[in-house]
Amino acid sequence: MSDKPLILVTNDDSISANGIAALVSAVEDLGEIVIVAPDKPQSGMGHAITINHPLRLKKSDLFSNHEAYTCSGTPVDCVKLAIYEVLKQRPTLLVSGINHGSNAATNVLYSGTMSAAVEGAIEDIPSIGFSLLNHAPDADFSHTIDYVRNITQQALENGMANHTCLNVNIPAENIQGVKVCRQGVAFWADSFDKREDPFGRNYFWLTGNFRESDNAHDTDLHALSEGYISIVPTQFDMTAHSSLGDINKWKF
Amino acid sequence: MSDKPLILVTNDDSISANGIAALVSAVEDLGEIVIVAPDKPQSGMGHAITINHPLRLKKSDLFSNHEAYTCSGTPVDCVKLAIYEVLKQRPTLLVSGINHGSNAATNVLYSGTMSAAVEGAIEDIPSIGFSLLNHAPDADFSHTIDYVRNITQQALENGMANHTCLNVNIPAENIQGVKVCRQGVAFWADSFDKREDPFGRNYFWLTGNFRESDNAHDTDLHALSEGYISIVPTQFDMTAHSSLGDINKWKF
Repeated sequence: MSDKPLILVTNDDSISANGIAALVSAVEDLGEIVIVAPDKPQSGMGHAITINHPLRLKKSDLFSNHEAYTCSGTPVDCVKLAIYEVLKQRPTLLVSGINHGSNAATNVLYSGTMSAAVEGAIEDIPSIGFSLLNHAPDADFSHTIDYVRNITQQALENGMANHTCLNVNIPAENIQGVKVCRQGVAFWADSFDKREDPFGRNYFWLTGNFRESDNAHDTDLHALSEGYISIVPTQFDMTAHSSLGDINKWKF
Repeated sequence: MSDKPLILVTNDDSISANGIAALVSAVEDLGEIVIVAPDKPQSGMGHAITINHPLRLKKSDLFSNHEAYTCSGTPVDCVKLAIYEVLKQRPTLLVSGINHGSNAATNVLYSGTMSAAVEGAIEDIPSIGFSLLNHAPDADFSHTIDYVRNITQQALENGMANHTCLNVNIPAENIQGVKVCRQGVAFWADSFDKREDPFGRNYFWLTGNFRESDNAHDTDLHALSEGYISIVPTQFDMTAHSSLGDINKWKF
């Protein structure tokens, strides 16, 4: 067992994505690195876990200097398998990403990258999800490395409140600095691309436009629109505390 | 177009589960019912959406008096397809369930049933997820019907705050009443059942015990432990507001 902090690395774009290679290169001198990542893309899996199928775990030689595994399940499955089957001690920190694409605002709910970080927070492991505002498979991560390393180092030095993680989103280029923000309010104005298969049956592709419905200046969406990295401290109590009184007036 | 409220019904245990039949029977005289539910079990899918595959939507004749469809995707996909492709107007209310199994406390994150309700809340449609504390496929829902109908009627009459839904969990028997609560703090002490397939390769089944780490009396877990139905008003701002100051002191 080494004295260095143990850093668990995962993502949702799969172990072969450029983003996780960038993340490993950013944090590898900060501790002992173990990678447990999905064996195939798992974008949009949210906080899904695998119940109806067994999971596979395979050693990977993709990262020559680090212990690495692929998992057949979701990002949350990766975190659970890492903690309960792979790692010999609990990790000091969990980092997830760097996601190819934004996970700002309401996207935190759909994001496999952030759900891995939230699962870390449930386990009370300080956790950070990193995302780049560019979903191209060949996105350039070179401008993110120093920032990702610094934020990870700050997390190791300062710790986090219990059961908390960070949602970090990074502009695609020309970073102006870092802002700590709240989660913006936005939604997907969804639409479906309806097509017909060669057998005359309909099928649908989910598409849509992301619409901000929050003009405040303290949100992640605002910080990103001005070229800043946004950091949203994130927790998982979803109680609408301000509604408790109203619902208590209902006649049950 | 009828004058009756339009009620969208979905779940995560699939259109053929007993729980959705119970839910439809509980609410069908309160409005016009349209059912859009998964064509196969989708438990534990959390807020997953389907990005890498197209979706199928098929008319179903399982509910002889109501328009019903199966969807090949997740519960959240069902809600999106219902709103943007199936329904001719926006629903007045969305009800999801009745889930076979508890979705109290932290389970709200993993639950397909509740993620469908949260997706309704994102769309600003008053939404309710109902769950029974019995995960057996042949669970008895008869004692839940009057309560489910009453809570649904109260929601129609009183409405809800914007972007809010309800997480309703129901004891398996002997209901003592209804309590409005906050989300309890609990976690899964996971373990994996490690097996070897006929070809000598390992595979893992996710198992685990649910552990409460919150002894307060205002939680859903406490209400349920005393035989009450728990209602947690639920929202989707996951910002750890109390951590904004701490993280702002970091040196970026």
